[in-house]
Amino acid sequence: MTGPLEAESVTLDLLKKKMAEFAKERDWEQFHSPRNLLLALVGEVGELSEIFQWKGEVPKGLPGWKEEEKVHLGEELSDVLLYLVQLSDICGIDLGKAALRKVELNAIKYPVSKQQSQKTNNTTLYNVNNGTESG
Amino acid sequence: MTGPLEAESVTLDLLKKKMAEFAKERDWEQFHSPRNLLLALVGEVGELSEIFQWKGEVPKGLPGWKEEEKVHLGEELSDVLLYLVQLSDICGIDLGKAALRKVELNAIKYPVSKQQSQKTNNTTLYNVNNGTESG
Amino acid sequence: MTGPLEAESVTLDLLKKKMAEFAKERDWEQFHSPRNLLLALVGEVGELSEIFQWKGEVPKGLPGWKEEEKVHLGEELSDVLLYLVQLSDICGIDLGKAALRKVELNAIKYPVSKQQSQKTNNTTLYNVNNGTESG
Amino acid sequence: MTGPLEAESVTLDLLKKKMAEFAKERDWEQFHSPRNLLLALVGEVGELSEIFQWKGEVPKGLPGWKEEEKVHLGEELSDVLLYLVQLSDICGIDLGKAALRKVELNAIKYPVSKQQSQKTNNTTLYNVNNGTESG
Repeated sequence: MTGPLEAESVTLDLLKKKMAEFAKERDWEQFHSPRNLLLALVGEVGELSEIFQWKGEVPKGLPGWKEEEKVHLGEELSDVLLYLVQLSDICGIDLGKAALRKVELNAIKYPVSKQQSQKTNNTTLYNVNNGTESG
Repeated sequence: MTGPLEAESVTLDLLKKKMAEFAKERDWEQFHSPRNLLLALVGEVGELSEIFQWKGEVPKGLPGWKEEEKVHLGEELSDVLLYLVQLSDICGIDLGKAALRKVELNAIKYPVSKQQSQKTNNTTLYNVNNGTESG
Repeated sequence: MTGPLEAESVTLDLLKKKMAEFAKERDWEQFHSPRNLLLALVGEVGELSEIFQWKGEVPKGLPGWKEEEKVHLGEELSDVLLYLVQLSDICGIDLGKAALRKVELNAIKYPVSKQQSQKTNNTTLYNVNNGTESG
Repeated sequence: MTGPLEAESVTLDLLKKKMAEFAKERDWEQFHSPRNLLLALVGEVGELSEIFQWKGEVPKGLPGWKEEEKVHLGEELSDVLLYLVQLSDICGIDLGKAALRKVELNAIKYPVSKQQSQKTNNTTLYNVNNGTESG
């Protein structure tokens, strides 16, 4: 049903429009206040966490996971994304624009050369950096 | 600084590539295991929640919020998105494709006509639906 | 089965011992690493959030909630608590002691007189305070 | 400073009373609606997650962690607990009573003998069990 769309071309704007239309068709806009959507997002992050909770450390690429587990994971990642897109929309935030700006801010905050010299000290320094990132 | 990019055209694929390059340049790929990225995402969801925590109900469009609060909100929404994109990438999940598929699944699960007849019963029925959505 | 125990006398230490025994009897200690328990806690916080997600603002005391909804809420609050107790135990943290200490630290950080003079400025100042609390 | 209190005897009821008094003295009760406290709790869970986010798998007892990291962890665990206690209180839920009841329900749901026979199949079965626990 996705028609000519290729996955590569999925924009945040497309998802925003699809979700807005979806809510409108079902008369669900009345439920989509910022804090309702935020709590729904937290609920989906919980479901995403449940997938990983008893697994111990999981290697990149999820070797050994069954296909159905990967499909389930894709659904939970999507649920988080779709609520995030709706929350941004309802708040009047252009998520794509904000994300590009944040990538640029991060690049200024963590210049390449500085980080490379830090890599020998690895985790500890990285933690410190991330601690300040949150401030 | 984004150059010719317009916010409308921001694809999930573009963000994935930018974040992968960002991590590679800083030798941060070593830290990007699925559960590390998941916990980082949970951390950012916490920061997003802090913005809304003492505000009581917040109307759509955030009337009365200062510009700096909106900018901060855009940054936290972006942080959640960027970790979500990286987590999907590290797990080998095509997030754009998965999200489109989830929208279609939701459309089947909540057909328009059925939902419209439910709207008179509003919150309760909607809650029931969402309860089963999580199962 | 609670026997002579009164709810008032439920200590964190009692819950810790019950949960440790529970895990041991089922040979579940092998799954109880710190990050496994943390992700399980995040999962339960998600379920707790789902209870509140479509409700808009909820008044104190939950007027109008059905008894079964309150029972469900009590279960989700308990799930969060029980994982929190187990996570603390596995990390070697005395949660009761730490909580009492934190109450005292908060009392120093937010002296009564200062807060009272702030109440006229209400939300905004309170937000600022809480923003720094997280730092 | 805790006076004659021993950590072992810290009850949920004591923490509830301390937090209620704390809020009253500062005129903060006006901010303590259920969803405000819930979002504050999510914020603290985020800070708790940040402590663990870049560490990879962490062994029980946190070997190699600095004393200050453990103190910080104790504070974040406490923040989650204190908001959980307040949220329960504001909702009229007796958290201690609910937690004891939940332990008993879990014991019925996961009988010892059945779980022991499952341990040979370990993670997979345990995951299945926990999946149903959430429903």
